[in-house]
Amino acid sequence: MSYPTNKNLPIGIFDSGMGGLTVLRALQNTLPHENFIYLGDTARLPYGTKSAETVREYALNACDVFMQRGVKAIVVACNTATGPALPALQEKFHPIPVIGVILPGVNAILSGANPQGPYVVLATEGTVKWHAYRDALTVLDPSRKIMEWPCSLLVALAEEGWCEGELVQNILRRLLQPLFDTLQGEQPACLLLGCTHFPVFADAIRQVVPNIPVIDPATMVAQQLKSLLSIHEIESSTNEKGTVEFLATDGIERFARVAPIFLGYDLKPEQVQLVALDFSEQRKKKAS
Amino acid sequence: MSYPTNKNLPIGIFDSGMGGLTVLRALQNTLPHENFIYLGDTARLPYGTKSAETVREYALNACDVFMQRGVKAIVVACNTATGPALPALQEKFHPIPVIGVILPGVNAILSGANPQGPYVVLATEGTVKWHAYRDALTVLDPSRKIMEWPCSLLVALAEEGWCEGELVQNILRRLLQPLFDTLQGEQPACLLLGCTHFPVFADAIRQVVPNIPVIDPATMVAQQLKSLLSIHEIESSTNEKGTVEFLATDGIERFARVAPIFLGYDLKPEQVQLVALDFSEQRKKKAS
Repeated sequence: MSYPTNKNLPIGIFDSGMGGLTVLRALQNTLPHENFIYLGDTARLPYGTKSAETVREYALNACDVFMQRGVKAIVVACNTATGPALPALQEKFHPIPVIGVILPGVNAILSGANPQGPYVVLATEGTVKWHAYRDALTVLDPSRKIMEWPCSLLVALAEEGWCEGELVQNILRRLLQPLFDTLQGEQPACLLLGCTHFPVFADAIRQVVPNIPVIDPATMVAQQLKSLLSIHEIESSTNEKGTVEFLATDGIERFARVAPIFLGYDLKPEQVQLVALDFSEQRKKKAS
Repeated sequence: MSYPTNKNLPIGIFDSGMGGLTVLRALQNTLPHENFIYLGDTARLPYGTKSAETVREYALNACDVFMQRGVKAIVVACNTATGPALPALQEKFHPIPVIGVILPGVNAILSGANPQGPYVVLATEGTVKWHAYRDALTVLDPSRKIMEWPCSLLVALAEEGWCEGELVQNILRRLLQPLFDTLQGEQPACLLLGCTHFPVFADAIRQVVPNIPVIDPATMVAQQLKSLLSIHEIESSTNEKGTVEFLATDGIERFARVAPIFLGYDLKPEQVQLVALDFSEQRKKKAS
């Protein structure tokens, strides 16, 4: 593959579902003149309960869509996919830059956490079990304790649109209580939102644990992407507002209905395109 | 395919994940001498947010495992899969009997609901949008109002093991409040647990709505299967305790960890076999 010279190619944003829309939102704010293609692999979500090998295979397969359409950069806007799939995606798409959310998340921790206490990463089961944050943080700050805490229930809660209020705060308290029990009075240096669904709970979490910085990696992802476009001199050359194409591998009605929770603006089902992945074509042929 | 004459073949139980284990539990209680193979398509769960076509395709593909291993009957222990996939599965496996959970659920409603008020079915989004319960109930009792109410959040809550207590009751109250608002004071004739995950909440729901029958179709599924085996004269001929094989298409560690919530007894990861579905073999070949 040759390096993209067309500055007005879109940037591909990949997620297993809809959580990555919180990242897209941050990217649109920071890079308003860029065009984006968002791809949610809704046919095969959630990635968090699947094996690393399956996640890698799914991500490589889904991102073929970016290959077909042409993109100048790719953001893996999914913590669970970044760990097992980022190196494979970088290799496949080379020299097109592919960035994930883990390293920006780690940088966000290092610049935003309190100077003392363990780093705490709230994440899905998949992200926790693959220890992508622990591995990256241990290298950069080996003296500090790191805890990766599973909160998969928050994914369902976010998609229900239950993001604030007393009941949500009580759910957060119950989810976080075993974490604080484990810490035995030690105060975390931060709570990193290590799943792209979780930024919708940022305010509610701050109310439950008011003295702990709650960090969303998305702003750092946007900064890193901006630098990358600048270094490679592939920033959009237009001053017009950028566009977004929304693609999903299944359930476009639901995608359009749930997306505004993460995106902050409305979507109509006709704005979401259904894409057939190669593997489904294969299976269809086999079944017929 | 020829009709199974070997009475000691197992019965295949299929679900998209782990909820169907509540059905297996009921079947083991009612038919203690039968052998079972439980297959959870954990690589592709949840089915509830996917399209009907995708669900049908997944179910047909996954149930090939039963074809390969030999079964004398199949239970689709998943409300979401029963609607779109049951007729296709019955056709594919003919003359091996294949039963779902919708019709037993409807029979359970007709025998267990109060004589007045709308029938209410609590279900996942998929089951609600395909209206399998409404369609079946309308035929049998056209005069009665039927409401299918989405409660997808309960799936995540069940898998978290949060099944009882005050917080769970408050979550149930919030989930059910819009239903009661819609009913404007009318009392439901029953709440049918139209997702195999939901029986773990039966007690909590009864405490939240003490005067409404809460109905789990699983007992009726077991009765229907028992009759079927008897009619076809394929009941197990042994007096020994039956066995169960557990198969999952991904994440067997998680399967073993979460299964006891639904099953009522412990499972070790080595008791769960990972099965590769044909489609993943195909994709692997393509990726390499």
